[in-house]
Amino acid sequence: MLIVKKFGGTSVANAERILNVANRLVESYKEGNKIVVVLSAQGDTTDDLIKKANEINSNASKREMDMLLSTGEQQSVALMAMAIQKLGYPAVSLNAFQCDIYSNSTYGNARIKSISTERISEELDKNNIVIITGFQGINRGGNVTTLGRGGSDTSAVALAAILNADLCEIYTDVDGVYTSDPRIVKKARKLSEISYDEMLELASLGAKVLHNRSVELAKKYNVNLVVRSSLTREEGTIVKEESTVEKMLVNGVAVDKDISRIALVGLKDQPGIAFNVFSLLAKNKISVDIILQSIGREDKKDISFTVSTADLNPALEVIEKNKNRFNYEKLLHDDKVAKVSIVGAGMATNSGVASTMFEALYDENINIKMISTSEIKISVLVTEKDAERAANAIHEKFRLDEIK
Amino acid sequence: MLIVKKFGGTSVANAERILNVANRLVESYKEGNKIVVVLSAQGDTTDDLIKKANEINSNASKREMDMLLSTGEQQSVALMAMAIQKLGYPAVSLNAFQCDIYSNSTYGNARIKSISTERISEELDKNNIVIITGFQGINRGGNVTTLGRGGSDTSAVALAAILNADLCEIYTDVDGVYTSDPRIVKKARKLSEISYDEMLELASLGAKVLHNRSVELAKKYNVNLVVRSSLTREEGTIVKEESTVEKMLVNGVAVDKDISRIALVGLKDQPGIAFNVFSLLAKNKISVDIILQSIGREDKKDISFTVSTADLNPALEVIEKNKNRFNYEKLLHDDKVAKVSIVGAGMATNSGVASTMFEALYDENINIKMISTSEIKISVLVTEKDAERAANAIHEKFRLDEIK
Repeated sequence: MLIVKKFGGTSVANAERILNVANRLVESYKEGNKIVVVLSAQGDTTDDLIKKANEINSNASKREMDMLLSTGEQQSVALMAMAIQKLGYPAVSLNAFQCDIYSNSTYGNARIKSISTERISEELDKNNIVIITGFQGINRGGNVTTLGRGGSDTSAVALAAILNADLCEIYTDVDGVYTSDPRIVKKARKLSEISYDEMLELASLGAKVLHNRSVELAKKYNVNLVVRSSLTREEGTIVKEESTVEKMLVNGVAVDKDISRIALVGLKDQPGIAFNVFSLLAKNKISVDIILQSIGREDKKDISFTVSTADLNPALEVIEKNKNRFNYEKLLHDDKVAKVSIVGAGMATNSGVASTMFEALYDENINIKMISTSEIKISVLVTEKDAERAANAIHEKFRLDEIK
Repeated sequence: MLIVKKFGGTSVANAERILNVANRLVESYKEGNKIVVVLSAQGDTTDDLIKKANEINSNASKREMDMLLSTGEQQSVALMAMAIQKLGYPAVSLNAFQCDIYSNSTYGNARIKSISTERISEELDKNNIVIITGFQGINRGGNVTTLGRGGSDTSAVALAAILNADLCEIYTDVDGVYTSDPRIVKKARKLSEISYDEMLELASLGAKVLHNRSVELAKKYNVNLVVRSSLTREEGTIVKEESTVEKMLVNGVAVDKDISRIALVGLKDQPGIAFNVFSLLAKNKISVDIILQSIGREDKKDISFTVSTADLNPALEVIEKNKNRFNYEKLLHDDKVAKVSIVGAGMATNSGVASTMFEALYDENINIKMISTSEIKISVLVTEKDAERAANAIHEKFRLDEIK
């Protein structure tokens, strides 16, 4: 089998952990597998480098930031190759230049465009364990780019896709995908399988086991993905096209506290207002999540929507700059909100799911501020302090702790 | 003017020093110069990385070591670009991949083969200060190499040569080339000029201001080299084809304590013995310096020679392994020796120089163990404890503290 294995920063944080991972890799290699490893930077390396940069220029160009940060992964891969060699097995490390991992030019958040398999295949043919820098690419001009949050997951999935790997294993500090965050919901249960779509919704809804972009890519190229622990030998969770084992109505409950609500109150009720607001935000690279539009008094209406908290101030700024154009009466915002969501392929065909969810919240006397639904998820916005109680109540209501 | 400026690790050891160097660069840029900067890794970065590697594998492959170590320079150049940007001036950092600094494949001690000027010229044309990683290259297979000790000096001179720069400034922690090591000879005097050949001899003899390979390269391509301090505004020392200002008999006294003497005693006096010994050492990449061959009793002879102390044990090992072949009676070694040398273009035509040097040592009652001479240098081997006294006596005798 050709297996791509990705290990995050905590798994390679020091010499001992690197040797531990090296042992696992050699074990798999000895079983006759061809192995491509994708690594993140060690532990706090990236944060330390950012701190170094900030001491010099807190507003450094993103190009130079990427040039700086990409060194972290290069150190990891070289050290891992040394660890495998120490165990007596052949290994070679490669960076983005060496396997032509081309991306677009969005420094700090680049997207992979193409990867050349030539060098990687050549090294695999030499029976090397091939260790590749995650998180980084180069653009057409030959400048170093980084792929943003969860970038190494994306690197691993992209490599698995292009190499036509039999499996892509994402090793992390949890041992799989759970029905909810175990720190919030005590009865949360590990899933043995989940579909790409469900995982996508869970990732975007704050489960954060895998980054969305990596799952999208896995779905697009039908990559067999497994999420498992780098510390234990647990089986992990398989992410694939269709979850065949557990055809559950609802597969998980996710909580996202990292969002804020913005409301434009008293807008003139004229065509195109909503379009103008959201296209302006899009142009400023601000992603909007739940949207609610309500007709208020007379010919006025309100638009409210959620953004990630990091985008709150930029969003407010850009809206205020265009105050005259939108002609609203008040601009409100609230960062003390949380989104609680349920995800499951089953709910598309079962209209009772939403009402069961709302009932769970009603029983707990939790007020719903906004609602958003899709084929496989339902999200509600609640006050931040109610979020954990809401997640537990919903988890309980759908009996997610029981295998059905 | 197009100027290549090289700064070593201590000059970029922290944020403050990086900003200090950035200020100097901007100053020169504002005078209308086009500037290419070559940097080493920050302060102890390289040592720290070596330590990290050793924790994992004390016998790591040199390829992976180079992959690891090269990240140090990449961090320096990115941080320097940020510092210049902070001051409001345009800068871009480039690594070996980005300017195609091709080398041979001798990992850890590679030689530069070619550099592409395309990207550098392009960035200079955009009025950028261009900051390039020293010490590193890539081989034809696209693997990262490092250039060994003094590698960043070599990078700088090679870039100055290929870019046809008007000047190559090597910034260091001393303010120029001295008639002797000021820590040893109190009256040592800074030279305003020195020739490539003299510099070459001084470098190989332990003056260590510039690495030999960088001076060889400068000589080959007639690069105007200046050695100056990164801390002061002193003028520095110009290294060029012919020293026109100071046509001195003797230009400097160098002391090298980092050598050891090996003697093969009682060799059979047959043709080819010396050749066999030294070709064996060469094959094992051990450089031999002063060689003395003496005929002893009957048909026996002795061969003694010096090697750098780091090579002492490898040299002894390889000789012992071939004991039967060489058939010597005793293998002796002494690491408590030092080499004291005088260098000067003038001595080639003046036969009195050697005797003046020997007289200085005789006056001080210092015993000479070995002698080696060339066109522009005379070296003597003395007991290590006599080395400083010898250097001072010679410096005094030739009145090197006086400008003639």
